[in-house]
Amino acid sequence: MKQVAIGIDIGGTNTIFGIVDEQGEFISRGSIKTETHPDHTIFLSALCNSVGSLIKESKEKIKIVGIGVGAPNGNYYNGTIEFAPNLNFKGVVPVVDFMRNHFGFEITVLTNDANAAAMGEMIYGGAKGMRDFIMITLGTGVGSGIVVNGEMVYGHDGFAGELGHVIAVPQGRYCGCGRRGCLETYTSANGIKRTVFELLADRLEPSGLRNIGYDDLTAKMIDDAAKRGDVIANRAFDYTGKILGEKLADAVAHTSPEAIFLFGGLAQAGKLIFEPTKRYMEESLLNIYKNKVKLLPSKLPPGDAAILGASALVWKEYQSK
Amino acid sequence: MKQVAIGIDIGGTNTIFGIVDEQGEFISRGSIKTETHPDHTIFLSALCNSVGSLIKESKEKIKIVGIGVGAPNGNYYNGTIEFAPNLNFKGVVPVVDFMRNHFGFEITVLTNDANAAAMGEMIYGGAKGMRDFIMITLGTGVGSGIVVNGEMVYGHDGFAGELGHVIAVPQGRYCGCGRRGCLETYTSANGIKRTVFELLADRLEPSGLRNIGYDDLTAKMIDDAAKRGDVIANRAFDYTGKILGEKLADAVAHTSPEAIFLFGGLAQAGKLIFEPTKRYMEESLLNIYKNKVKLLPSKLPPGDAAILGASALVWKEYQSK
Repeated sequence: MKQVAIGIDIGGTNTIFGIVDEQGEFISRGSIKTETHPDHTIFLSALCNSVGSLIKESKEKIKIVGIGVGAPNGNYYNGTIEFAPNLNFKGVVPVVDFMRNHFGFEITVLTNDANAAAMGEMIYGGAKGMRDFIMITLGTGVGSGIVVNGEMVYGHDGFAGELGHVIAVPQGRYCGCGRRGCLETYTSANGIKRTVFELLADRLEPSGLRNIGYDDLTAKMIDDAAKRGDVIANRAFDYTGKILGEKLADAVAHTSPEAIFLFGGLAQAGKLIFEPTKRYMEESLLNIYKNKVKLLPSKLPPGDAAILGASALVWKEYQSK
Repeated sequence: MKQVAIGIDIGGTNTIFGIVDEQGEFISRGSIKTETHPDHTIFLSALCNSVGSLIKESKEKIKIVGIGVGAPNGNYYNGTIEFAPNLNFKGVVPVVDFMRNHFGFEITVLTNDANAAAMGEMIYGGAKGMRDFIMITLGTGVGSGIVVNGEMVYGHDGFAGELGHVIAVPQGRYCGCGRRGCLETYTSANGIKRTVFELLADRLEPSGLRNIGYDDLTAKMIDDAAKRGDVIANRAFDYTGKILGEKLADAVAHTSPEAIFLFGGLAQAGKLIFEPTKRYMEESLLNIYKNKVKLLPSKLPPGDAAILGASALVWKEYQSK
């Protein structure tokens, strides 16, 4: 009988899930739409039914150890999604209570998606055996998961690790959180787009990006343009790396990690983002930290990382029992 | 037989030590000069002899559980003081090895003074029972100790928690660390003095501080002037609180503590520093953290805090055995 975990990633559009063994191998997987369920009770019922079917249909003999869920604004302590701006569900969604009622697994655990990604990296990926590291997710927004002494940092209220919302530029760009200058307004997929538009306004170099509207421009186009040698696109990556490197240097002064992992869309740009980030980070680090902190790409396969992260939460709880 | 710990605080000028019980009561205390010993071996011998005499002379029947040492640039993992700019001793000083050789206590532990202060607060002070908090020491410099999940954050290399050296103002004031804009160039005793000089240069208000030279001005004089209603001095505290509050908001986004404690000379100014720091911190916090994080004065008696912090290291190790 194979021991497995259920990993569930709740996203704004889709919710994906899988049955995963301790080595990170998928037994099976499934998905449902998130956005077509405006009511959270109906959504959670539909989710439990789909997951239940997946379990029943499993051909291998499996023993389920528990369920892990990654979700925006997921709170580990409360087992709830709380006021997630990117989900249809209003207010507080009692995910863990609902699923524990439905399935009865003692290990039913929820956290935010960046924390889940960090846990996935620790259990299955490049952070295996590391006790102190930081995971930075560079997606539509910027998220982070901080691990200290081998444990996830949840903080007093379950909301620790919001490095996307440290202030990178005082009185800088307007952020969806209502403040200004947050890291994610510079180093997310949307942030680099804003940088490109600033550079197009400020500078004179010709650029293939000059004929694309703001709403049409994507981080992928900037990546492609940079690889073609577009000066504006390359400058945008350099500036993104500068802001990110500087704030990572501050993060190091907090928890002094062995490594910082970059994950998500922008991290896919490889050397374009890693090279300037590393360079500016090293320039910005306090002497005692210089040349000590590895800056690494996540080793999780991008498509499966969210489910792996969620299922990793289960193994982590299981190990500490 | 009373169980006691030896607490030692190594400072640039003096080294003070005491025998302390589990409730933080002193059995006895002593001190030697640090600065008169340019060689660390001679210093450590003298220190061990003085501490040894204190133990022998104790009138109460005591059982010593271990020795804790707080020192600038103290590294918990290595048990060494490493390249401390404020001490006479060059290079790496093997404090723990030396003292363990001399006294033979298995629990012989060293960390930096701000971490020791945090530990003191957790064992004897206002952080009793807290699992997530930050201690900020506002002295000649700015130090910090971060506690997460009830454990000190030492980081990968033993040097975590250098919040005095996060960048408060990009390209700001020159710092002793060789970089610019570090928090401690604004919010240390020296930092507020620099702020006063900026304000005196910038503004027109009369001030009792206009007839004092830079080298003569102390944080205490600024405190006194502010209490007399001096406009420049009051503005200096407000600005100090602004910078500190903003950076504490960033620190909260890392580890989401239950409380932040302020300790040291500037914290003695009470409402003058607490009020603006709290106000600007709340203004700067991401929504999910607002009105959750307590800003508290240390409950350790200022004169004894360093020895208490060092001895607290011993109880912490003892508890986790």
